[in-house]
Amino acid sequence: RPSLPHRSMMITMSQNQSYWASVNSEIEAHLKQAIPLRPPLQVFEPMHHLVFAAPQNTAPALCLAACELVGGHRDQAMAAASALHLMHAASFTHEHLPLTDRPRPKSRPVIHHAYGPNIELLLGDAIIPFGFELLARSDDPAQNNSDRILRVTIEITRAMGSQGMVEGQYYELECPQSDGEELCDVGWIEQVCKKKEGGLHACGAACGAILGGGSEEEIEKLRRFGLYVGMIQGMLHGAGRKEKGLKEVVEELRNLALKELEEFKGRKVEAISSFVNV
Amino acid sequence: RPSLPHRSMMITMSQNQSYWASVNSEIEAHLKQAIPLRPPLQVFEPMHHLVFAAPQNTAPALCLAACELVGGHRDQAMAAASALHLMHAASFTHEHLPLTDRPRPKSRPVIHHAYGPNIELLLGDAIIPFGFELLARSDDPAQNNSDRILRVTIEITRAMGSQGMVEGQYYELECPQSDGEELCDVGWIEQVCKKKEGGLHACGAACGAILGGGSEEEIEKLRRFGLYVGMIQGMLHGAGRKEKGLKEVVEELRNLALKELEEFKGRKVEAISSFVNV
Repeated sequence: RPSLPHRSMMITMSQNQSYWASVNSEIEAHLKQAIPLRPPLQVFEPMHHLVFAAPQNTAPALCLAACELVGGHRDQAMAAASALHLMHAASFTHEHLPLTDRPRPKSRPVIHHAYGPNIELLLGDAIIPFGFELLARSDDPAQNNSDRILRVTIEITRAMGSQGMVEGQYYELECPQSDGEELCDVGWIEQVCKKKEGGLHACGAACGAILGGGSEEEIEKLRRFGLYVGMIQGMLHGAGRKEKGLKEVVEELRNLALKELEEFKGRKVEAISSFVNV
Repeated sequence: RPSLPHRSMMITMSQNQSYWASVNSEIEAHLKQAIPLRPPLQVFEPMHHLVFAAPQNTAPALCLAACELVGGHRDQAMAAASALHLMHAASFTHEHLPLTDRPRPKSRPVIHHAYGPNIELLLGDAIIPFGFELLARSDDPAQNNSDRILRVTIEITRAMGSQGMVEGQYYELECPQSDGEELCDVGWIEQVCKKKEGGLHACGAACGAILGGGSEEEIEKLRRFGLYVGMIQGMLHGAGRKEKGLKEVVEELRNLALKELEEFKGRKVEAISSFVNV
């Protein structure tokens, strides 16, 4: 594996864009290669489609950036980043299933369904284990990384499970506000975004730091950075994005996020700090 | 950990029943302890319910039996057995969701839904990662078992994914026969059972053998044994159980299954061979 001189690399804003583009295209290429159109085609073809139909999410890219920030090579975090995209794709697919008793929140755009709901339900169920498979397969005796991979597996299961993503989705469902924008309030939006986008990004950043060999302190700093970044994105792009008082909360989260990066000065900090502005 | 004198233990049929009862109650106790009613209660309470609402499945017990057969202690396979039950429970929950375009197969019993479909969809999504979490957490430095756990993780992801359980469920959906019993034929039933119950039991037996320290040959023998056992159960208890010609296929599968156990003679073979008669 080539080793890049990360720590001395300083990049400008326009270089950030090419950093982004390169990180995202690498994750996509990795996933495309990992999901070949193999038999049974009638299952793999729609799975392939659903994985790439989900809107882009920055948690996987953040995972690679965190890995590089602590001095690792992005290849070390590629399987985890791909698994994070798969988890996001499965959640997105299941969130948009037309279930019989679900009122469609007005704020949620109508999406095109290429397949029937049964197929989308099933394929979501196939995508989740596939993410954990990719991760487990990245175990490499030459790198002696089993412990890190098991640790990252636990991180991702928790971010997706009943105290993470699912809890956020649960709040969304249970709250009468989810029927229409007018009933949302910033506190509720913040709670949902914390569990959903916040949790996924916190997990992504922590996993990258673990796989890149970061210290426990670095892992926790990057976890908090990811939490703030995810919350910002959830709040700016989600249902309540026009809510009063939201801009102030976002500005505060940006400051909190950047504060977590202070001790990384001199490293590849510009690339990762650009995540607060996505 | 106490070590039992497995290899010399020979048990009679009535002892088999107590073996079964003890194995199943141990798995249940392990799961109950692993899913405490912790906050958020509104998520954990239904999760707890759904995990135990799924009908009993023998793949987890087979996992423990295979572990003991190759000379391991059942504790070594307890996390994997619990994960298998969780995968089964998640599949069962999602299979019974009332989706808008799904005709309910006549052969499928109406089940009681304690929660709305949105909650059941979400909780199924939480149960899958929870299974992988339990498994990853069973990593024990004292046992130096990381590699076995990663291998078993891959086994379970494959059994559940797009070339396993999901493929079988896909066949069920796509086939016009699933609308009513009268159109099933034994060949189709066999194909579905091979992917669903067969795959889950093959995986369970292989995982038990891996975790118990079985040789590659033992792992593959037990994998085939599990495949036949699962197929038998799927065929005897599933939609097409009254189909003509099915009894002959089941009898043949029983013989094939028992043949795989021949080389284990003298070990705890009576307990595991009773699985062909469940």
